[in-house]
Amino acid sequence: MTRTGRRPGTSGSRDRILSAARACFATSGYDATTIRSIAAAAEVDPALVRHYFGSKEHLFVEALEFPVDPAQFVPRLLEPGIEGLGERLTAFFLEAWETPGGRPFLALLRSVAANEAAAEMLRQFVTREVLERIAAVLVLDRPQLRAGLAGSHLIGLAMARYVIRIGPIASATPTELARAVGPSIQRYFDEPIPT
Amino acid sequence: MTRTGRRPGTSGSRDRILSAARACFATSGYDATTIRSIAAAAEVDPALVRHYFGSKEHLFVEALEFPVDPAQFVPRLLEPGIEGLGERLTAFFLEAWETPGGRPFLALLRSVAANEAAAEMLRQFVTREVLERIAAVLVLDRPQLRAGLAGSHLIGLAMARYVIRIGPIASATPTELARAVGPSIQRYFDEPIPT
Repeated sequence: MTRTGRRPGTSGSRDRILSAARACFATSGYDATTIRSIAAAAEVDPALVRHYFGSKEHLFVEALEFPVDPAQFVPRLLEPGIEGLGERLTAFFLEAWETPGGRPFLALLRSVAANEAAAEMLRQFVTREVLERIAAVLVLDRPQLRAGLAGSHLIGLAMARYVIRIGPIASATPTELARAVGPSIQRYFDEPIPT
Repeated sequence: MTRTGRRPGTSGSRDRILSAARACFATSGYDATTIRSIAAAAEVDPALVRHYFGSKEHLFVEALEFPVDPAQFVPRLLEPGIEGLGERLTAFFLEAWETPGGRPFLALLRSVAANEAAAEMLRQFVTREVLERIAAVLVLDRPQLRAGLAGSHLIGLAMARYVIRIGPIASATPTELARAVGPSIQRYFDEPIPT
């Protein structure tokens, strides 16, 4: 795997490929985007794309990871403690989505629903990089279920706001939504879950 | 519109078309399914499909509406009052999804994410037929926002359980999930929403 090795003089094309990949995935979705179309958009040879990223799947994950790196944001959100985590997580999630760097998320959500490989990628990514980090700091029973339930509400919020565009969810500000949704997510972190 | 008029002797083909449509949408998704492929599966002429249902969109909505008719289930869920509605709604939603009749939902969810027309259809359907009925019985402020937030959690639960298949969400029983999620949805029906 050479994907993490940036050699002198080549990081320019690597970054250009990543930018082109983000634009292509956001515009055309996962299935319709090819190594070839990304190479064309980046004005490089397809072989160079394969050299840096191997497969379209790897490139997708790399392109995704750029705007928000869970290794950085999850510890930062957890740092003030469990209290208020539901609201902080929701606010962060919506803000990340609404920066220009967040456009690949929409492509991802669209791809995931139609494509098993993309769904599996997102599952691994979300489970390993986000939910397990959160579960690790929860002190109550069933931390994985709790983290998964929190994640499911966030995914639904994104579907309702950006994909289905349910009126009052689409028109609220991220802050309003974070305040409204925060306590529903917070319960999963600090209240008993009925069995 | 002849879609609700069942004429003597023709309801057999109408029902056969609906069954074929459900199977085709569930298997191939919204985009790849055509009036022609549904007609072939139902062993009728495509003109008969158009006669009964007009467009693929109408047929999709009709096929969808069959397993759960919001005009019936929403009043039934609301009948015992607001108390416990979050849990009843979640349990009903998951059970409907998990009957054989619920398979078109998965097709819908997959279609919605990739297809603007399907997203718009779901938006209209969910807003008009489900959320507005629930909003109508809520006595607190911003009933549409409240109903939309409840709906967003349910959509996310379906994405997490059936599409992304996040481990602990996919393996829990509908009853476990309803009990775990119920209170997070219930808040939207009976607690103040921070502004």
